[in-house]
Amino acid sequence: MPNFLARIYVTPKPGVVDPQGLSILGGLKNLGYDSVSAVRAGRYLEIQIGEAPSREAAESRTTDMCRQLLANPVIEDYRFEVVEND
Amino acid sequence: MPNFLARIYVTPKPGVVDPQGLSILGGLKNLGYDSVSAVRAGRYLEIQIGEAPSREAAESRTTDMCRQLLANPVIEDYRFEVVEND
Repeated sequence: MPNFLARIYVTPKPGVVDPQGLSILGGLKNLGYDSVSAVRAGRYLEIQIGEAPSREAAESRTTDMCRQLLANPVIEDYRFEVVEND
Repeated sequence: MPNFLARIYVTPKPGVVDPQGLSILGGLKNLGYDSVSAVRAGRYLEIQIGEAPSREAAESRTTDMCRQLLANPVIEDYRFEVVEND
């Protein structure tokens, strides 16, 4: 069976306060980047999810992992792509 | 002038210990995802970098921001894409 890699992007939902993003925004302004207007800070995960019979099965497993552990559905959105390892 | 959005991915360099990734890996195994073999945990940032005369200028500004604030060059790699806002 082929091996798969999942790349997962977790971001704060629109409207949710994002203290880390606000902190980075302040830091950029202090450095003189006055044109920067907004920063959203999320997480990026690369997960070797192992063997699966198909890409669809690997995507389904990744969705389960996001729901159970990787993203907080109350305050975060997630999206991902699953690719076959070389 | 057009407005640009930067999407920035910061990851631990290969070989650097990644405690957050190891913690997530342990959590997934505890949930029964036995086929998962590795997790790398990084950051994902969306930055509204404002107006720039060209995409090249916006990319150059993003590189400067990564070097000065967003990534730690000793232990992290970064990559990004810059897109024009609608």
